[in-house]
Amino acid sequence: MSHNIFGHLFRFTTWGESHGPAIGCVVDGCPPLLELAETDIQPFLDARKPGTSRFVTQRKEPDQVKILSGVFEGKTTGTPISLIIENTDQRSRDYAEIKERYRPGHADLTYDAKYGIRDYRGGGRSSARETANRVAAGAIARKILGDDIIIRGAVVQIGAHMIDAENWDWKQVSKNPFWCPDAKAAKDWESYLDEIRKSGNSIGAIVEVHAENVPAGWGAPVYGKLDSDIANGLMSINAAKGVEIGAGFASASFTGVENADEIRMDDGDYTFLGNNSGGILGGISNGDTIVARMAIKPTSSMLSVLKSVTKSGEEIDVRTKGRHDPCVGIRAVPVAEAMLACVLADHKLRHRGQVG
Amino acid sequence: MSHNIFGHLFRFTTWGESHGPAIGCVVDGCPPLLELAETDIQPFLDARKPGTSRFVTQRKEPDQVKILSGVFEGKTTGTPISLIIENTDQRSRDYAEIKERYRPGHADLTYDAKYGIRDYRGGGRSSARETANRVAAGAIARKILGDDIIIRGAVVQIGAHMIDAENWDWKQVSKNPFWCPDAKAAKDWESYLDEIRKSGNSIGAIVEVHAENVPAGWGAPVYGKLDSDIANGLMSINAAKGVEIGAGFASASFTGVENADEIRMDDGDYTFLGNNSGGILGGISNGDTIVARMAIKPTSSMLSVLKSVTKSGEEIDVRTKGRHDPCVGIRAVPVAEAMLACVLADHKLRHRGQVG
Amino acid sequence: MSHNIFGHLFRFTTWGESHGPAIGCVVDGCPPLLELAETDIQPFLDARKPGTSRFVTQRKEPDQVKILSGVFEGKTTGTPISLIIENTDQRSRDYAEIKERYRPGHADLTYDAKYGIRDYRGGGRSSARETANRVAAGAIARKILGDDIIIRGAVVQIGAHMIDAENWDWKQVSKNPFWCPDAKAAKDWESYLDEIRKSGNSIGAIVEVHAENVPAGWGAPVYGKLDSDIANGLMSINAAKGVEIGAGFASASFTGVENADEIRMDDGDYTFLGNNSGGILGGISNGDTIVARMAIKPTSSMLSVLKSVTKSGEEIDVRTKGRHDPCVGIRAVPVAEAMLACVLADHKLRHRGQVG
Amino acid sequence: MSHNIFGHLFRFTTWGESHGPAIGCVVDGCPPLLELAETDIQPFLDARKPGTSRFVTQRKEPDQVKILSGVFEGKTTGTPISLIIENTDQRSRDYAEIKERYRPGHADLTYDAKYGIRDYRGGGRSSARETANRVAAGAIARKILGDDIIIRGAVVQIGAHMIDAENWDWKQVSKNPFWCPDAKAAKDWESYLDEIRKSGNSIGAIVEVHAENVPAGWGAPVYGKLDSDIANGLMSINAAKGVEIGAGFASASFTGVENADEIRMDDGDYTFLGNNSGGILGGISNGDTIVARMAIKPTSSMLSVLKSVTKSGEEIDVRTKGRHDPCVGIRAVPVAEAMLACVLADHKLRHRGQVG
Repeated sequence: MSHNIFGHLFRFTTWGESHGPAIGCVVDGCPPLLELAETDIQPFLDARKPGTSRFVTQRKEPDQVKILSGVFEGKTTGTPISLIIENTDQRSRDYAEIKERYRPGHADLTYDAKYGIRDYRGGGRSSARETANRVAAGAIARKILGDDIIIRGAVVQIGAHMIDAENWDWKQVSKNPFWCPDAKAAKDWESYLDEIRKSGNSIGAIVEVHAENVPAGWGAPVYGKLDSDIANGLMSINAAKGVEIGAGFASASFTGVENADEIRMDDGDYTFLGNNSGGILGGISNGDTIVARMAIKPTSSMLSVLKSVTKSGEEIDVRTKGRHDPCVGIRAVPVAEAMLACVLADHKLRHRGQVG
Repeated sequence: MSHNIFGHLFRFTTWGESHGPAIGCVVDGCPPLLELAETDIQPFLDARKPGTSRFVTQRKEPDQVKILSGVFEGKTTGTPISLIIENTDQRSRDYAEIKERYRPGHADLTYDAKYGIRDYRGGGRSSARETANRVAAGAIARKILGDDIIIRGAVVQIGAHMIDAENWDWKQVSKNPFWCPDAKAAKDWESYLDEIRKSGNSIGAIVEVHAENVPAGWGAPVYGKLDSDIANGLMSINAAKGVEIGAGFASASFTGVENADEIRMDDGDYTFLGNNSGGILGGISNGDTIVARMAIKPTSSMLSVLKSVTKSGEEIDVRTKGRHDPCVGIRAVPVAEAMLACVLADHKLRHRGQVG
Repeated sequence: MSHNIFGHLFRFTTWGESHGPAIGCVVDGCPPLLELAETDIQPFLDARKPGTSRFVTQRKEPDQVKILSGVFEGKTTGTPISLIIENTDQRSRDYAEIKERYRPGHADLTYDAKYGIRDYRGGGRSSARETANRVAAGAIARKILGDDIIIRGAVVQIGAHMIDAENWDWKQVSKNPFWCPDAKAAKDWESYLDEIRKSGNSIGAIVEVHAENVPAGWGAPVYGKLDSDIANGLMSINAAKGVEIGAGFASASFTGVENADEIRMDDGDYTFLGNNSGGILGGISNGDTIVARMAIKPTSSMLSVLKSVTKSGEEIDVRTKGRHDPCVGIRAVPVAEAMLACVLADHKLRHRGQVG
Repeated sequence: MSHNIFGHLFRFTTWGESHGPAIGCVVDGCPPLLELAETDIQPFLDARKPGTSRFVTQRKEPDQVKILSGVFEGKTTGTPISLIIENTDQRSRDYAEIKERYRPGHADLTYDAKYGIRDYRGGGRSSARETANRVAAGAIARKILGDDIIIRGAVVQIGAHMIDAENWDWKQVSKNPFWCPDAKAAKDWESYLDEIRKSGNSIGAIVEVHAENVPAGWGAPVYGKLDSDIANGLMSINAAKGVEIGAGFASASFTGVENADEIRMDDGDYTFLGNNSGGILGGISNGDTIVARMAIKPTSSMLSVLKSVTKSGEEIDVRTKGRHDPCVGIRAVPVAEAMLACVLADHKLRHRGQVG
C-alpha cells in the first residue's frame, strides 16, 4: 500500500497540509554514513520555493528545512530521517469562500466525494506545497546516488512554444526564471507568460529530466520496471497529465528501423547510436542517459470566471483569488528531478539487494 | 517491493518465460463469492492471442488457461487464484543464434548487465508473452468491478496515421484486425501495415483505454493516485514508452480556461462540460469516464539488418528471424484494458478498506 | 519493506532518537471523519510515561503530543496524521562514557555491526522511548475500532512471581504501579521490586493483553494471519523475547481433547466452552476474546558490573549509570495494548477492503 | 499487504488447497546465478512429507516438486521461480460429512465467518499441506544463505515430555521418527505417542530451530526486526501458538545479571558468554547462533468425540475421521527451518540493499 509513501528500499512518507502548522517527510531506508546536513537539502528547496519571480506564486515561504532525526554528528545513521518545514505565510482568509465551492480542475470535488471532508484551506493536502517534501527527499536520494550521477531538468515547452533542441545549453537553465535551456525561447516566454498572467489565465508546460551516468542494470522486471516506477513518480506530481520515456509518444510514428538505437563498441565498451529508448530497455537501465518528460496542465487556479457547482449542488460562477502560479510547470522542474532521484536511489538499493 | 507483483489489496504475481513449459499468474486478495470459471477468462486471452491475422505474430498458442486454486464450486473463495497457461509452440531453435547477440531495442543487453545471465529463448522473461497473465488477471478484476463498469480500448494511431475522432464507433473495434474504432482508418492501416510487414520493418502505435461508470472517490493521494497507478501499470507493458491521462501532453498547450472542465448540474448530479482531466482530479476519480493513452514503440524484432554487438564485444550486424508482430501495439489493447481493470479493482478494494 | 513502518492499510511510520530534539509518528490510512484531538491520545501517553513511580525510570518527560496534520475542525480527513513529541529531559552526559562501550543485552554492538555508526546517546533509535509513538498510534487505532472493542493489558508475572488467575480483577490494574490485576500479588511485587532495584539489578516480566468483542472474520490466511501479525507487533517491542496466543506454550503439553475449545449454541449464536485458541483459528478471529502474552526480558541497563568489550576490542567492566526501569515490563503494558490495537485496526480495514 | 505472500526482497507467494489439483509457490527476488535444480529442493520436501512413519498422517503424497520458471541451464536467472507440487492422494469422500460441521480447533468456522464460503475438502487452504510450499521456498533460501549458514531444527518437547538438554546430539535427529536430538527421550516418546494415537487423541509439541554462523548486522529496526520477522514467520505456521527467541519466556524469571550475555574477546573477535538473547539484540543479529522455539498445539483433527455446532446452528457431536498426525509438531520441524531460512535470506538481501 502506498497512500502517502513512495519507494521501497529507499522510501519516504510525507504529511501536511498547505495551511497547517508545518509539512514534513520521513525518509526511511537511507544507507548509513552519508554526510548530510540541512545545507545539503536547502538549495534544492530554494530552487522550488515560491516568490522568486513574477512568474510564480507570490506566497512567501522560506521553506526552511530542519532535520529532526537520523543524522548524528553530520552523518546518516541508517535510521529514519525526519524532515520538517514550517508553514509561515498562510492566508486562510483567501480561501474561506471556496469552502463550499468546487473549483474546476481542482481536487475539491473529488476529496469530498472520497472522504466526505476536506481541509479546504489552500487546497489542504492536494496543494502543490506537498512537493517541497519530495524535493527534500530528492536531495537525500542524490547523496545515495553520489556525485557521478547527474540529475537535472528543464522546461522544454510552455503553451505551444517549444524550445529549439539545437539551442539546448544546460548553463542557460539557471539564467532565466523558466528553467529554460534555450536562451532565445526564454526571452519569448517572458512576454508570453506576462500576457497569460495579466489576462487572469494560466498555461501548461512540458518538463524534461535527465539522469546521466546511471550504470546499466538498474530496474526490475516486470512490475518494478525503472520506467514504470519513473512514470508512477512523475505522474504523482500535482498537475501532471502525461509521462514519456525517451522518444515517448513520438515513437508511435517511428518505424522499427528509425527507432532502433543501434549499438557499436567504443573504447572497449558498448555505445548506443541513438537514445530513443531514453536509457531503459525491458525496464532496466542500459547505461545511456535516462530521459523522461512530463506534461503539466495549466494551473487550475486563476482569476478567469468558470462555471461550477457548490457542495450542495447550486450552480455558480467561480473565480479563484489568492496567489497562484500562471504556469505551475516552471516550479515542477526541481520536483521532477527529485522524483527521478528518488526512483533511482530506490533502484540502486534494490539492485544491490538482489544482485549484490 | 514489486519485482513481479502488481497491485496492493488486489494483486497478482506473474511468472514464466516465453519458452519454458508454461507461464502463470497468482491472483491474491480477490473477494470471495464471485462466480468465476475458465470461460470468464478465456475470451480475453483469445482476443490477445497470437496468430489471429496476418498483422500479428504467427506463433500458434492456444493460450488455454487453467484455474488451479481459489475457486470452489464455481465461486471464488477469497484465497489465491492460481492460473496457468502452457506454452506449446516454442521453437527455440529460432533463437539459438541470438544467444550471444544483443538485439537493439531488446532487453538482451540489460538483462545480461543486471543478472549476468538470461534465458535468451524468445526473450525469456522479457517476452510479451508474459502479458497473457495480465489479461487473465484483468478478467478477474472485471468481475470485481461488476458489469456496470465498462473497460474497453482501441488503437487510435499506427505510425503517423491517426484515426479521425469524429468517426469513433466502438462497434468497429471488433470488425477489423486492428482494434480500430474508425472504419475508414482501419482500411488505410491494412495496406500500410502490409507494406511495413513486407519491408521487414515494424511500426509504433497509440492505444487508448476507457473506463466508464467508475464512481467518484477512488484513488489515494498522494502516492497511490489513480493516475500514477495507471501510469505505472501501462508503462510496465512491454514496448510502452509513454502514458497520458485525459488531454495528456496536449494539455501543455492549453490555457487554464481551455483546459478547465467546467461543472454544471444535470438531473440532480454534477456533470462535467469537458473531460480533459480524463476522469481524475487530484489522483481521485471524479465520476467521468477515465481515459488513458499509451505509446507503443515499433517492434524491436524485425528482418531489417541493424548494427549491434555481441556479449563479448564484437561488432555485428543483427537481423531477427522468427515470428514477430509488425505492430505490437495492436495486441497491446487487451493488455492495456486488463491493466486498467486491475488498477481499478485494487482501488475499489483500497477505497472500501479505508473509507468503508 | 518495513524498516520503520508498521501495518498495511492502517500503517504508521516512526522516527526519532532518545536524545534528539523530538520523536514522532506518521499515521497513514486512517479513515476520515473520526473525531480526534490531542486529548484522545494524551491519556495513553501519560499511562506509559516515565517518572510515575519509583519502579520506573526517573527521566522526566511530559510526553506532550502535538497533531501536525490530518485533522481538520476536530475530525480526521483521511490524510496522514503527523504526531510529534518533543524530548525535553535528555542528559546526554550520562551516556558519554558508553560511546565506545558495548553494554551487554543492548543494541550497541549490533547497531555498530550493521551501520558502522550509532547515536549512542540514551540508546538512540533503539531506546524504548520510541514506543511512545506506538502508544500514540494505538490511540488512533482505538478510534477506528470503536468503543465496543475493549483492549486492555496487565502484568501477570514479574520474575518468578505470577499472579493468581483466580484473583484477576481489571479494576485493580490502575490501583497499583505495576498494572497488576491481582491486588495480593501487587503487594508482594512492591517489596520484591524494591529489593531488585536497590541491589542494582533488574527483572523480567510477562504482559498479557486482551481484545474483547472483536467480530469473527478478521485476519488473512496464510501470511497475514491475525496471530502472526500480533506476534510480529509484540515481538517488535523493545526487550520482548516471546509471544504466545491463547494457551500458547502450555498447549504443547495439552492433548487434543484438553485443548479443544468445544462449541455450543447460546442465544442463537455459537459460543466456545474454552479459549485456548486465544480467539483466533486459522489466523482469523473467531469472535471470542483475543488473548496474547509477551515475555519481557530484564532491563539490560543496570548498576551491576558486567564483563564486556569496547568498540576497539578491549575487555572492560561495564556498569550502566543513568536512569533506568528496574522492570521494563511494567511500562510495556500500554505499548502492548497499542500494538494489539494497531494490528486489529489494520485488519478491520483489510477485511473490509477484501470482503466488503 | 501480505495475504498470501511472505517476505520483502526475497519473497514467496503460495497458492493451492489440500484437495485441489496442485499446490504451488512463486519465489520472487531470488539472486541470479545460483545453481538450482529440483534435486536441491526435493530432500527437504521428503523430510516433511506424510506417511513416513506410523506417527504421522498416512496420506500418501510423493510431494514431487517441479520448477516451471526462473531457472535456465541449471542456474537461477533472477526472475520468478514457479514451483508446483501435484496433489495425488485426495480422498475428498472422507471430508464430505464435515461440509456443514465445524470441527473445534479448526478454521472451518472462521473461514465461513470471513468469506461466507470455504473449500471444506481436507481443510482447503487452511490445510497444513500448504506448508510444503514453505519448505520448497526454504530450500531456495538456503541457497541464498550459502553453505556456511547451517539451519536445523528439532522437537524438544512432546506433551509434558521434554528432552534433557544435556543429551542434545544433532546426529540423533535423523535417527528417530520425531526429529528428537535426545536418544533417550526419543525412546520414551515412542510409547507415549503410540498411546496417544491409539486413544484417538493428539498432543502438542515444542520445536526449536537454530541458525548458525549468521553474521552480525542482519535485521532492521524497528519494524523489520529479525526477531519480529521470525516471530511472524513461525507464528504463521499452522497450529503454532507461541514463539520465543533465546531464553524467551524463561527470561521473564531472570534478573538482569542472570540474563546478561556477557562479552569477551576471543582470538581477535568478540564472543558471548551466554546466549539468552538467541543471537539477536535490538532486532539485529549479533553473530551468535540464532535460536527460536515455537509451541505447536495438539492436532485438532482426532477420533475423539467433541461438542460442536453446524453451519446452521445445530448442536452436534463431531469426530474427525480421515488420516491425521497424532502430533503435528513433528512434521513442523522442516517447516520451521524453512521459515527461518526465508526470513534470513530476506534480511541478507535487505541488509545488502541498505548497507551494501
